[in-house]
Amino acid sequence: MAKLTSLASALLCLCASLLLCFNGKVCGAYVKYNTRAGVVAGKLNVHLVPHSHDDVGWLKTIDQYYVGSNNTIQGACVENVLDSVVEALLRDPNRKFVFAEMAFFQRWWVEQSVATQEVVRNLVDAGQFEFINGGWCMHDEATCHYIDMIDQTTLGHRAIKEQFNKAPRAGWQIDPFGHSAVQAYLLGAELGFDSVHFARIDYQDRAKRKGDKSLEVIWRASKNFGSSSQIFANAFPVHYSPPTGFHFEVNDDFVPVQDNPSLFDYNVEQRVKDFINAAINQANVTRTNHIMWTMGDDFRYQYAESWFKQMDKLIHYVNKDGQVNALYSTPSIYTDAKNAANESWPLKTDDYFPYADGANSYWTGFFTSRPALKRYVRVLSGYYLAARQLEFLAGKRSNGPNTFSLGDALGIAQHHDAVTGTAKQHTTNDYAKRLFIGASEAEGVVNAALSCLTDNKSREQCTETTFKFSQCPLLNISFCPPTEEDIQEGKSLVIVAYNSLGWNRTDIIKIPVNDANLVVQDSSGNTIEAQYVGLDNVTGNLRNFYTRAYLGLSLKQVPKYWLLFQASVPPLGWSTYFISKASDKGKSRNGFFSMIDSPQNETIEIGPGNLKMSFSSTSGQLIRIYNTKTGVDVPIQQSYLWYGSNPGFDGQASGAYIFRPNGSPPSVVSRSVPLKVIRGPLVDEVHQQFNSWIYQVTRLYRDKEHAEVEFTIGPIPLEDSVGKEVITQMTANMVTDKVFYTDSNGRDFLKRVRDYRADWSLQVTQPVAGNYYPLNLGIYTKDKKSELSVLVDRATGGASIKNGEVELMLHRRTLIDDSRGVGEALDESVCLDNTCEGLTVRGNYYVSVNQLGDGARWRRTTGQEIYSPFLLAFTHENSEDWKASHLTTSTAIDSNYSFPLNVALITLQELDDGTVLLRLAHLYEVGEDTEYSKLAKVELKKMFTGKMIKEVKETSLSTNQEKSMMKRMTWKVEGDSSQEPTPVRGGPVDNSTLVVELGPMEIRTFSLKFILSSF
Amino acid sequence: MAKLTSLASALLCLCASLLLCFNGKVCGAYVKYNTRAGVVAGKLNVHLVPHSHDDVGWLKTIDQYYVGSNNTIQGACVENVLDSVVEALLRDPNRKFVFAEMAFFQRWWVEQSVATQEVVRNLVDAGQFEFINGGWCMHDEATCHYIDMIDQTTLGHRAIKEQFNKAPRAGWQIDPFGHSAVQAYLLGAELGFDSVHFARIDYQDRAKRKGDKSLEVIWRASKNFGSSSQIFANAFPVHYSPPTGFHFEVNDDFVPVQDNPSLFDYNVEQRVKDFINAAINQANVTRTNHIMWTMGDDFRYQYAESWFKQMDKLIHYVNKDGQVNALYSTPSIYTDAKNAANESWPLKTDDYFPYADGANSYWTGFFTSRPALKRYVRVLSGYYLAARQLEFLAGKRSNGPNTFSLGDALGIAQHHDAVTGTAKQHTTNDYAKRLFIGASEAEGVVNAALSCLTDNKSREQCTETTFKFSQCPLLNISFCPPTEEDIQEGKSLVIVAYNSLGWNRTDIIKIPVNDANLVVQDSSGNTIEAQYVGLDNVTGNLRNFYTRAYLGLSLKQVPKYWLLFQASVPPLGWSTYFISKASDKGKSRNGFFSMIDSPQNETIEIGPGNLKMSFSSTSGQLIRIYNTKTGVDVPIQQSYLWYGSNPGFDGQASGAYIFRPNGSPPSVVSRSVPLKVIRGPLVDEVHQQFNSWIYQVTRLYRDKEHAEVEFTIGPIPLEDSVGKEVITQMTANMVTDKVFYTDSNGRDFLKRVRDYRADWSLQVTQPVAGNYYPLNLGIYTKDKKSELSVLVDRATGGASIKNGEVELMLHRRTLIDDSRGVGEALDESVCLDNTCEGLTVRGNYYVSVNQLGDGARWRRTTGQEIYSPFLLAFTHENSEDWKASHLTTSTAIDSNYSFPLNVALITLQELDDGTVLLRLAHLYEVGEDTEYSKLAKVELKKMFTGKMIKEVKETSLSTNQEKSMMKRMTWKVEGDSSQEPTPVRGGPVDNSTLVVELGPMEIRTFSLKFILSSF
Repeated sequence: MAKLTSLASALLCLCASLLLCFNGKVCGAYVKYNTRAGVVAGKLNVHLVPHSHDDVGWLKTIDQYYVGSNNTIQGACVENVLDSVVEALLRDPNRKFVFAEMAFFQRWWVEQSVATQEVVRNLVDAGQFEFINGGWCMHDEATCHYIDMIDQTTLGHRAIKEQFNKAPRAGWQIDPFGHSAVQAYLLGAELGFDSVHFARIDYQDRAKRKGDKSLEVIWRASKNFGSSSQIFANAFPVHYSPPTGFHFEVNDDFVPVQDNPSLFDYNVEQRVKDFINAAINQANVTRTNHIMWTMGDDFRYQYAESWFKQMDKLIHYVNKDGQVNALYSTPSIYTDAKNAANESWPLKTDDYFPYADGANSYWTGFFTSRPALKRYVRVLSGYYLAARQLEFLAGKRSNGPNTFSLGDALGIAQHHDAVTGTAKQHTTNDYAKRLFIGASEAEGVVNAALSCLTDNKSREQCTETTFKFSQCPLLNISFCPPTEEDIQEGKSLVIVAYNSLGWNRTDIIKIPVNDANLVVQDSSGNTIEAQYVGLDNVTGNLRNFYTRAYLGLSLKQVPKYWLLFQASVPPLGWSTYFISKASDKGKSRNGFFSMIDSPQNETIEIGPGNLKMSFSSTSGQLIRIYNTKTGVDVPIQQSYLWYGSNPGFDGQASGAYIFRPNGSPPSVVSRSVPLKVIRGPLVDEVHQQFNSWIYQVTRLYRDKEHAEVEFTIGPIPLEDSVGKEVITQMTANMVTDKVFYTDSNGRDFLKRVRDYRADWSLQVTQPVAGNYYPLNLGIYTKDKKSELSVLVDRATGGASIKNGEVELMLHRRTLIDDSRGVGEALDESVCLDNTCEGLTVRGNYYVSVNQLGDGARWRRTTGQEIYSPFLLAFTHENSEDWKASHLTTSTAIDSNYSFPLNVALITLQELDDGTVLLRLAHLYEVGEDTEYSKLAKVELKKMFTGKMIKEVKETSLSTNQEKSMMKRMTWKVEGDSSQEPTPVRGGPVDNSTLVVELGPMEIRTFSLKFILSSF
Repeated sequence: MAKLTSLASALLCLCASLLLCFNGKVCGAYVKYNTRAGVVAGKLNVHLVPHSHDDVGWLKTIDQYYVGSNNTIQGACVENVLDSVVEALLRDPNRKFVFAEMAFFQRWWVEQSVATQEVVRNLVDAGQFEFINGGWCMHDEATCHYIDMIDQTTLGHRAIKEQFNKAPRAGWQIDPFGHSAVQAYLLGAELGFDSVHFARIDYQDRAKRKGDKSLEVIWRASKNFGSSSQIFANAFPVHYSPPTGFHFEVNDDFVPVQDNPSLFDYNVEQRVKDFINAAINQANVTRTNHIMWTMGDDFRYQYAESWFKQMDKLIHYVNKDGQVNALYSTPSIYTDAKNAANESWPLKTDDYFPYADGANSYWTGFFTSRPALKRYVRVLSGYYLAARQLEFLAGKRSNGPNTFSLGDALGIAQHHDAVTGTAKQHTTNDYAKRLFIGASEAEGVVNAALSCLTDNKSREQCTETTFKFSQCPLLNISFCPPTEEDIQEGKSLVIVAYNSLGWNRTDIIKIPVNDANLVVQDSSGNTIEAQYVGLDNVTGNLRNFYTRAYLGLSLKQVPKYWLLFQASVPPLGWSTYFISKASDKGKSRNGFFSMIDSPQNETIEIGPGNLKMSFSSTSGQLIRIYNTKTGVDVPIQQSYLWYGSNPGFDGQASGAYIFRPNGSPPSVVSRSVPLKVIRGPLVDEVHQQFNSWIYQVTRLYRDKEHAEVEFTIGPIPLEDSVGKEVITQMTANMVTDKVFYTDSNGRDFLKRVRDYRADWSLQVTQPVAGNYYPLNLGIYTKDKKSELSVLVDRATGGASIKNGEVELMLHRRTLIDDSRGVGEALDESVCLDNTCEGLTVRGNYYVSVNQLGDGARWRRTTGQEIYSPFLLAFTHENSEDWKASHLTTSTAIDSNYSFPLNVALITLQELDDGTVLLRLAHLYEVGEDTEYSKLAKVELKKMFTGKMIKEVKETSLSTNQEKSMMKRMTWKVEGDSSQEPTPVRGGPVDNSTLVVELGPMEIRTFSLKFILSSF
C-alpha cells in the first residue's frame, strides 16, 4: 500500500494548496520579488549581467538583424531587444542591462519618440541601462587596423556622450576571436576603461588559468606604457552565455522558477540549489568572492521580460536562502567590487593570440579569410582619413555629401564577423555595398573639397557644388576612364595628387594610358621623367572580367600601357601634374619604354636603385636580396605553396574561422617559373606566372628601398575537391631561433616564438596553424646581422614555420563549413552570365632587408605610405587655363613646416559643431629606433597656419571625456616590483606655444576650437 | 554603361536619404502611427483581431504552457502572452486584444499585483482587452457532454463577471474539430452571445460557401427554439491564422514593414500592396464590406509588441493609402458592423459534423480516441453533479475540501485536445492526474457531507470532520476494499446509496465480495433479494494488473463474487443497506447463486424480465431482441470487427484525430463465439470471449427494459503492424433508408443521412469515416414499426454504414501519427515492470428496442440513469447502532414531491457567497414523446423544503447576466418566412408560487438566495 499511501499524502498536500489558492487566499498570489540586493561583504556575490550580444551583421545583414527580417536564417531582431529591455527595466528599478553596439542603438534611438528618449535617458542616468564598450560595433582584434578601431569607437562614444553625457567604463569584447595588445592598452586603458571582458582565449590557456585562478588579470599590454595603461581583464570561465540551465530566452528550453504552489512542478528549492551549485563551481576558479554571470547570448532579450522574470525570482529566492548573494550588476559594478577586494592579481603582458577552442581548432584562418574585403576596408580606411582632412580643409558643409556614411560603413565593417571574413556571403555583400555607398559619398566630399581648394575663386569661401574631378578606385586593375580616354587637342589630363601624410612625399603615380606619345609635366612646366610599361594580359583580363561582373561594362579593349612617373607632394597638400600629347604645342614625348630583358646569365639581377634582387634565370627562383647602399645581403628564396584544407572528417574542417591544414606538407605551386624581366629608369619588374592561377610581379623602384610584390591569385581551383590555402613563402638564410615579430593592429610589434606561449606550457597539436599570427602592418625576423621585413596591404595571416622563413597566407578557398555557425564554406566566387568562378585576389606585399636595428625606420615610414597612398583626382582641361585659375600645389600647413617623421596625423576631422578633432600618433616604440624612439613634437600653430586656435582640449582616445578628468583605478599585481621605468609621455600642451609632445607610441587626441573670423 | 548609371542614380538616392538621416534631419525619425481608425462606411473594412490561441494542454500540459517549461516540445508560455499583451495595449489605446481561455487567465491573474490588476481592469473597461468565449477552456464540441460544457463555461464566465463585471459577447470556437448544434444555440445564443466564430468546417462545405459567400450565416441549430436561439456564425475562409505573410510572432519569418528610408529594404508601398491584395481576396468571398483577419495563432503573442508594431504600421500606411480601411477590432465590433450592414444572411440549421480537411482526412477518429479518458471524464461529470448537490445540502464549508478542484479539472478536461484524446500521452496523464486529484477532493466533500447528513447529531449543523465513509471508484474492475474485506462479528457493511436524480429510483447495486454467506437488509430490517455471480477471470486479471500498474498494489487474490441487489432511493436522497454475515445473530443467507446454463437447444433465450434476447447456441450469435410486454421483436446480429488503420503512405494515416480505414472491409473478430450463460433472479448474463482480447458480457436485468453490454477490449495487438479500430456492430433487419439519429452533446438528437449533407452536394471519398458522428448520449434508427436505440457510457464514434446497422467505435490503437500536430501515434499502453502492453478498455453500452415513437422515453430516462448512477459510500458498523444514530433514508426535497420525469436537475451548487445556483433542464424535444414533450413544471418550494427562498433570479445559462437584461440582435435571413411556430418556453417565475416552467429542451438557470435563519 506504500504507493497508494504516498499518492494519498501527496494528494492531501496538493489539495491543501489548491484549496488555499482558489478560495482566493494565499497560493498563486502576487509575489513582490526582492531584487534590491547590492554587493554583500562576506558572501559569494553572483553578479548577474544582463546583456544581448548583437552582431553588427553575420548570418544576416545589420539591417535585417535590426528590423528582424530574414528570420528563416536566424530569429533575431534588435529592435525587439531594445524595445523590450526598456519595458522590462521600467518594471523594476533594480533591473539592469548593458548594451554595446552603437550601430544598432543609433538605429533604434532615432526612431523613438521624445518621450521614450527621455525614459531611456532616465534609465541611463539611474544606472539601469549602461553602455559598455560603446563602439559602433564590437570590433575584431586580429584584422582591424588601430586607426579603424579608434574611429569606430569614437563614432559610438561620441553618440553616447552627445545623447547621454556618459562615457563607457568597461570594455566588452566578449566574442572576438582572440585579444590584442592594442585592444587592451589603447582601445581599453586609453579610452578610460577600467576593465575589459571577453570569452575567447585559448583552451589550454583557459584550463591553466582556471587551475590557478588566473582568468582575471591585470593586463599590461604595452611595452611602452606598462602600468600606466594597464587594465583589469576578465576572461570568462566558459563563454559569454549564462551557466547551463540559466538561459531564459523566450521559447528557449529552460526550467522556469516555478514558485506558484498551486500549479504543478513547483521547484523553487531545486532551482535555488542549481543556482548555488553553479555559483560555487565558478567561485572555485575565481579570485575574490565576486563572480560574474553573463546573462545573455547572441541576439537574446528578444522579449526581455522572459529573462528578467526568471532573474527576479532567482535573486529573490537565492537571497532568501542566503548561502550566496545574487544581484543585478554590470561590468562596472563588478569591476568596482573586484577593485575594492584589495586582491593581488596575476600580471599579463602581450596578447591572447592565436585563439584555439580545441586541439585542431585554431582560429587563424580568419586572419586571411576574404582578402578582397579586407583590402577594400583597408583602402577605404586610408581614404576616409584623407577625405576627412579635405572635408575639414574645405570647410564642412551642412548639406551635400559628407564623410559620415563612409565612417558608418567602416565602423560596421570592423565588426568581428565583418572584416574577419566570417559572415555569410550575402552579409559580406552588404558590407561591401555599404562601403561602396560610403566611399562614393566620400568621393563627392573629396571632389567638392579639391574643387574648392584648388580653385582660386572659391578657395577662401568654398561654395563650389560642381565636381570637377573624377577618381579611379579600380586603378589596381587598370580601369581608369579619365586616364584611358584620348586627351583632346588643347587639353591635358590634369592629375591632382593629395598627400595626407604630415611630411613631404615623393612617390610613383601609375596610370593606365592608351597613348604612347605623352608628356608629363609638373605645375611649373617641368617635364617629368616617365616610364611606359606594357599592360600584361593577366591585368587586362582581370580588368575586363571584373568590370563586366561588377559594373556591367563590356569593355572590348584594355589600356595599352601603364604610365609611371614620380610625383612630389607637400604635407597635407597637393601637387598638380599635366599629361599632354607630345604632338601638342611642340612638346615631345618624355616616356621611357620599358625594355624586356632576355637573361643571358644563370643569374639575373634587377633593381634600378640601391636595392637589388637576383634570380636564377633557369628556375626563375629568387636567390638573394641585397642593398648596395647599406650592404645588407640576404640569400633568400620565394615561392608560392598551398596547404590543403582539412575536410574535417573528424568534425573540424578548415573554414572561414579556422585554419586547419590537412597534415600534408604544403604543395609547392611550381619549382621552376619562367621570368619576364622588364627594365626602365623608374622601375624594374619581374613577371612570373607561377601557374595558371598565380601571377606575380616583383617591382624594384629606383627610389625605394624595398621590393613591391604584386600577386594575383585565383580562381583557386577546387576540381580536386581539396580546399586550398595559398601562401607566399620567403626563406632566408638567417638564424632566427624560432623568433619573429608581428604587429598588433598595425601598431606595436610583438615578439612571437614558434611553438611557444609565455603564459603556459604549450602542447603543440597544430604545428602550422598554431603558429599563425594576424598581421596588419607586417612581420619581420632577424638574425645577428640583418632584418627581413615584410609589410602587407591588408589584414593577413603570417607565420615563421621554420627558422629564417616568413610566410603570408594570401588567399583561401575551402569546400566545407568549419562549424562555427556561419554555415557556409569559405568559397568566394564571381558570377557572370550564370557562370561562376573562384574569386581572384590581387594585392601587394613589400619586402625589405635592413641592417640589424634599421628595419623599424623602413617599416614605420613605409607602413604609413602603404596606408595613405596619394589620393589622385583627374580631369581634362587646358593646362594653362588651369594654372591661371588654380592653385596647383599647396600645403595646408605652414609651408616651411613638416611633421617629424616619427609622428603621424591619424585624425583630422571637423565635427558638426565646427569643433576639430585632432589625433596624433607617435610611430615608434621605445628602443625601436635610435633616432626616432624619442619624444616628438608637433607645432599646432604651424600645422594650422592661417587659423587662430581658440581652445585646445586634450581628451580621451575616443574624445568622450577630458583627459585631465580621467581617473585610473589602482590594482595590486602579483610580484609587482614597481621598478618599471616611467613611460615617456608628452606633457600638457602650453596654451601659448601650442606644441604637442608625444612619447614613443603615444597617441594624443585633441578637441580644437578656432576663431571663426580668422578662417 | 546602363548598369553603372542606374547604380549611380540608386546611389545618389541612397546618399540623399542617408544624408538627411544622419545629420539628424528627417529619415529614421520617430513616426507616430495613426491607429485610430474605426469602421469606415463605404470602404472595405479589414478588422484586425489580435488573438492568441492557447490550448489548455496539448503538446505540453496546461501548467507547462502557462509557465513556459518543456519548450523543447513547443516554445509556448502563456504568462509571456498576457504579460506582454498588457504592456503592448498600454503603448497605444487603440490597440485591442481578445482572450478566451480562463483557465490560463486565472493562473495569471492571481499572480498579478493589485496595480497590474487595476491596469487590466482599465484595459477591459476601455474595450482594449476583451474576453471572448470566456469558458475555462475552449471546449470540444463533439465529445463533450452539454452539462460539462455549461459547467466549464460557467466557471470562466463567473470569473470574468466577478473580476471585471463583464459578460463575453462572442463565441470563439476557432479550433474545435467541427461544430455542434448545442454549441450554437445553447452554449452560444443562450449564453447571450451574438456571434460564434470558428475555422474548421468541411473542406467541401467551405469551398461551396466561399463560392456563394455563405461562410457567414445565421445559424438556427435548435429545432425547438428556431430563431429565438439563433446566432451569427462566422466560418473563416482559411484558418484562424492571419493571411499568408501577416503573421508577426517574435522570431517568425516575416517581412517587417520597413518604413525607415535610411535603412536598407524600405518596403512600405510593397507591404501596403500585399495587404490590399489579401484583403480584396477575402472580400471576394465575404458579404458586406467587413472582413475579419484573425491576427494570431497557437500560443502567439509571446512578445506581443512584435505583432502590434507591425499592425500599427500596417493600419497607418494602409489607411494613408486609403484604398481599404484597416482597424483594430474584436469579434464584437465585427459582429456589430455585420449587423449594422443590414444584409440578408443564409440560414444554417443542424451542425457542422463531421469535419474533414481533405478527401481522406475525416476528423472522426477523435470521437473515440482515448476511450478510458473519455469515460473518466464522463464518470466524474456525473460525480461532480452529485458532489455539488451534497456540498450544498450539507452546507458549503469555507475550509476543508470542496468541489472546486474537480470542477477545475473537468473544465480543463473539456478542452478540445483533452477529452478528444488528441493530446500527447504525457499531457493526457496530466489531465488524468488533475481529474484524480479533483475527484479525490470531491470524495472528501461527499464523505463529509454524507457523514453530516446521515448522522442524527450533526445533520442540523454540519461540523463533522471525520470521514466515515470510503468509496470505490474502481468498482468496474471489482476493486473495492470495504466490500471485499471480511465483515467482522457484530458489524455490517453499511452502504449508503445517494441518488442525484430528481425522482425516486430503483437500481441494481453490485459489489465484489468474498463471502458467500451474506444477508442484505434495508434500513427497515427487511431482507433484500440478492444474487451472487462468480467473478470472471477477465475481470479478475484486469483488477490485479491495473491496481498493480496504477496503485502499486500486489493483490494476490480476486474477490470471489459479485453480489447484486436492488436498491430503491428517493430523489436527491439516500437509502442505507446493511450487509451482514448470515451466521450472525440468527440471520440466514439470502443470496441466490447464479446458475450456469448449459444450452440444450439451437437457440438459447435469456432475460429474467420483459426483455429477452435469443442467441444461437452453436455460433453464439445474437439472433433477436424482443420485449414480451411491448411486443417489439427485432431480428438482430451483433459482432465485433476492426478497421485496419490506414498507414498513410500517401501522407494521411489514421490517428488520434483522423479515422481513415485502410480500405479493406472491417475484419470480423470471430464468426463463432462460445456462450457462457449465467442466470439468476435479478440478472441473466451471457459471457463471450470473442477473441483473446475482446470479452463481452450481455446483461438482462429483471426490471430493466434494455440489455447492458459490457465490453472489455484490449490489449489491441499490433504485432501484424496494422493499427486497429475496433467496433461493435449491430445489424438489425430494419429498413432504415440511410437515416439514423445521433445526439448533439448528449442533448438534441439530429437526423443523419448516410452519404449526404444538407448543405452541399457531398462527394463521397470515405464511405465509412465520412459517415461517422459523435455520440454522447447515443444513436438510434427506426423503421416503420420499431426503434433500435443504443446508448453509450462516454463519448463514442458511431455510424450506420448499412441500412439497419448501427456501429460504435469502442477502442482504437494505431501505429502512425496522423500529421495534425500531436506527433504521436495513438498507442495507449500500460507498463508494469518495464513491460508495456496496450491499454485495455472496459465499458458498457445499452441496447433497447421499442415501438416506433416510444424510444425517446427509454433513451431520455436511461440516459439520465447512466449519467447519474447511484453514488455509493461504504463503512463497517454495527447496524443497530447505525440505525439508532443515523438517518438511514431521506430526501432533500419534500418527501411527497418528485421532479417530473421530463425534467432533470443539472446543477445545484452553492457558491462561495452562499448564493445557490440552480439549473433545470427539460429532457425532451418538441414532438419527441407524446406525453413528455410538453411544458413541465418544477415547484421550488417543494424542492427546497424546509428552506425559505428569499430571491429567485433567472440568469443567462452561465449565470453572468440577468435573463431579463439579455439583448438579442435581429438579423435578416434569406428566404425567411417568419412563419415558424412560436417556441414553447416557460414563463417568468412567480415570486409567490415559485413554480418554474420549462418548455421542451429548455434549460433555465437561476440564482437563489435563502433566508439563512430558516436553514
